Amino acid sequence: MNIKTAFADTGFIEYNLEPIFKPESMVVIGVSQKNYLSPGTTIFLKNLFEMKLGKRTYGINPRGGTLETYKLYKDLRSLPETPDVGVIAIPPKGALDAVKNCINLGIKGMIIISGGFAETGRQGQQIQDNIVKMCEDARIPLIGPNCVGIYHPPYIDTLFLPTEKLVLPEKGNVSIVSQSGGVLLDQFFLSFRERHIGISSAVSIGNKAVVNEVHMLEYFTEDEETQVISFYIEGFKKLEGREFLHRSRRTQKDIVIYQGGKSEVARSAVESHTASLSSNFNISSAAFKQYGIIQPQTEEEVLNYIKTYSELARRRPKANFTEYLQGKVAIVTVSGGHGVVCMDLLNKYYLSPVEFTNKEKQTMKKLINPTIKRIGSFNNPIDLTGAATDADIINILKYLIELEKIDIIMLIVVPYPPAITVQIGRRISLVARHHNKPLVCFVPYIEKYNLIRESLELNHIPVGHTVSETVQMAAAIRDKSRAVLRLSANKIPDDMLAYYESIQEER
Amino acid sequence: MNIKTAFADTGFIEYNLEPIFKPESMVVIGVSQKNYLSPGTTIFLKNLFEMKLGKRTYGINPRGGTLETYKLYKDLRSLPETPDVGVIAIPPKGALDAVKNCINLGIKGMIIISGGFAETGRQGQQIQDNIVKMCEDARIPLIGPNCVGIYHPPYIDTLFLPTEKLVLPEKGNVSIVSQSGGVLLDQFFLSFRERHIGISSAVSIGNKAVVNEVHMLEYFTEDEETQVISFYIEGFKKLEGREFLHRSRRTQKDIVIYQGGKSEVARSAVESHTASLSSNFNISSAAFKQYGIIQPQTEEEVLNYIKTYSELARRRPKANFTEYLQGKVAIVTVSGGHGVVCMDLLNKYYLSPVEFTNKEKQTMKKLINPTIKRIGSFNNPIDLTGAATDADIINILKYLIELEKIDIIMLIVVPYPPAITVQIGRRISLVARHHNKPLVCFVPYIEKYNLIRESLELNHIPVGHTVSETVQMAAAIRDKSRAVLRLSANKIPDDMLAYYESIQEER
Repeated sequence: MNIKTAFADTGFIEYNLEPIFKPESMVVIGVSQKNYLSPGTTIFLKNLFEMKLGKRTYGINPRGGTLETYKLYKDLRSLPETPDVGVIAIPPKGALDAVKNCINLGIKGMIIISGGFAETGRQGQQIQDNIVKMCEDARIPLIGPNCVGIYHPPYIDTLFLPTEKLVLPEKGNVSIVSQSGGVLLDQFFLSFRERHIGISSAVSIGNKAVVNEVHMLEYFTEDEETQVISFYIEGFKKLEGREFLHRSRRTQKDIVIYQGGKSEVARSAVESHTASLSSNFNISSAAFKQYGIIQPQTEEEVLNYIKTYSELARRRPKANFTEYLQGKVAIVTVSGGHGVVCMDLLNKYYLSPVEFTNKEKQTMKKLINPTIKRIGSFNNPIDLTGAATDADIINILKYLIELEKIDIIMLIVVPYPPAITVQIGRRISLVARHHNKPLVCFVPYIEKYNLIRESLELNHIPVGHTVSETVQMAAAIRDKSRAVLRLSANKIPDDMLAYYESIQEER
Repeated sequence: MNIKTAFADTGFIEYNLEPIFKPESMVVIGVSQKNYLSPGTTIFLKNLFEMKLGKRTYGINPRGGTLETYKLYKDLRSLPETPDVGVIAIPPKGALDAVKNCINLGIKGMIIISGGFAETGRQGQQIQDNIVKMCEDARIPLIGPNCVGIYHPPYIDTLFLPTEKLVLPEKGNVSIVSQSGGVLLDQFFLSFRERHIGISSAVSIGNKAVVNEVHMLEYFTEDEETQVISFYIEGFKKLEGREFLHRSRRTQKDIVIYQGGKSEVARSAVESHTASLSSNFNISSAAFKQYGIIQPQTEEEVLNYIKTYSELARRRPKANFTEYLQGKVAIVTVSGGHGVVCMDLLNKYYLSPVEFTNKEKQTMKKLINPTIKRIGSFNNPIDLTGAATDADIINILKYLIELEKIDIIMLIVVPYPPAITVQIGRRISLVARHHNKPLVCFVPYIEKYNLIRESLELNHIPVGHTVSETVQMAAAIRDKSRAVLRLSANKIPDDMLAYYESIQEER
């Protein structure tokens, strides 16, 4: 089976999402004068006051009037211009009419924030189906319903929560697509801020009635700001999964998927949350793997994988990924206990410690101070002990970074030993700039040691806050290498595709 | 087999550790005048300037002289008094003499900070063996060698790292025993501070040549400040494990063990770190379980388990643990995605969601605002959606807390929804004060929401920063209940004991 016949006619409809992500004007349908916390009101005022749209944000309230001195319009026809995007924040029945009116007016894209559709039962499903039909016929994209919509600063922000209630990430090269608004705002936004991961765009697609993961994959593949495309998925609908796999082959960017609702017991929660079929997890996993899509298993792993890819995309010189298959790791630590914990974790993530020859151990002993020579250990992990100085770490690093048998170097920079200074980060970075060997560091995120962390991250060396995070970063590098190798073979995994397809058809 | 015959004569020697943990005077052997970062110098000055010991801290330097205007003594005999405790910070050969001299002088306890003993090979092992013999003959306790010693504010602090380089936890009811100084300072101290867990004492026992986990278990069982006794263990030496199990039955306090070096690949790292035999992990696990000792599997779990037990020990009214065997959980969330992620995690930790009857669902629907009635979900997880107010959460909580079929309530308080206020924590606490039902909350640790977290923690309700942490807290409660039940059966698990003993003897 080749790609063309496999994906010949899935009925997939393409949409132009540009007007939704970079609108020049917007209308919010459902702005309340009385309830200053209502979603429509919040979205209207946020875009009016905080985003680039400014006064080209319009509000609809059937009774007209004003809000914060700005005029509210009674209906779409009275607007001074046809807005690029319509944001709908009213219950399902009214939303159905609003969609019709938006399409008739010539609006280029829509977002339905409100819930009460397919996720609540048959009646909601019917209304949702009617909306889908209208959008498909008119080829107008719609995000939602049952979502928080789009956050793409400085252009648009339809998160219906007051900005000050949120923790927003910095600008960066990661884009996020989430079926859940809550997961987007908490597991992604807050955690990104904590881990210094920057985003380009974020979108919560909710029930993904019209625009789904496939469209977002296409959009972010083209988007120049985006290097890493991350997904929180609760389930694919029929054919979506197949289409997603197919199109994933067109992007060189890193795709990271986190799947919720993997367990049997979570299925009914998925149903009442976003009305998605929670797909058979094991099958998707195998297919994703074949297609070079990375699928971490825990909340923590997702974040560390994304951070690693975000940094790798910017580190120079660029790592040559086709060479790093085995995940052979060299560990340098100044705390033996951290070394022991690290070894357990390497084992968990199927990474393996490089073995050093006696000659290599002897060479290393010549590079360090006499106390360490006496009490340190030169097996792997190399334990420089609390007697380590900056110079000891740097001398060992310079030696290891030239050793071909090492795929990834892991530096466990516990900063407490007396002779380790805050200059250690900059010195490590300077060594790293002359080599393309992947390097990950452990530096606890402590305010007084931010100097170390920042000097490493400025040079795009991923830094973990715990040993566990750091090992996950090494695993992310190994996994990327595997994915790249699979894709560079440029072979359609026929059997996997056929298998996955047959499963999909059963639904 | 009964306890008496099983543990009749293991050659276990008891020591009085009180003078080490609450010394009134101390001598530091190995204070350098030139190197202000040397371990001995740091320990001398810290206790002189920062701890209760003050001027009753004495320093030894063979050349005499002064340091920071304080006199250094040439030898132990010239000291103005016999100190309670001797801290030895010189290389192995000198340390051997120092131990002899300390014992002859009548010092009541010793700590050897220095490395270079059993962990470095045969020569070091011999010196260590000689030291052990002297201490055992004289019945004088010795901590270490190859450790950071004791931190028991305000009495004593032998961490040889400058205080400002560390992150120290608040005072509390947890005591820590660690084979690794680095793990103590980073995985415990820093993480405790981040998670608001307070400590009573901490001790790094290093090579545990004389004082080992068994002595520490005995000491903290008696210590009134300690409610939770936590261990980082890389391996038990011969008979230690058996003795530990035996004595664990004498304490009503929570015992939490985290074992490093569990994997085959980590064994050699353990050997060169603390020279302990890394015991066969599976066997220890089974034995620990039988004895009601809690053994979390990851760094993250250890912290959440400890935090949970630390709070449970203080919460009033006290939970009745013999009743909560099943781990039946009710989840209340305001974000559906968090609910889905939570269900996956419940599954992972073998917790099960309670099922609500239709009647119960109807009752809950009457307790909440009309929007949620329309778009929310009343299965488990109960999804109140972003439309939730403080009152909705409280009304549902008041209902659930009376339901007998629920073992643990989990409140996922994502604070972003517009109508949730910072008062929610206090309101939850007020409900909890009238019931002994275990309750865990998710509230992201964000500075602007500290009010919520603090109001819960002031009432000793454990709060997790992620859904994963919060689920682990529920698992900790279920595990404690199992442990209590096992112990209250008051039965010696003969088969397990015999099995464990036979394995130990093989070594």
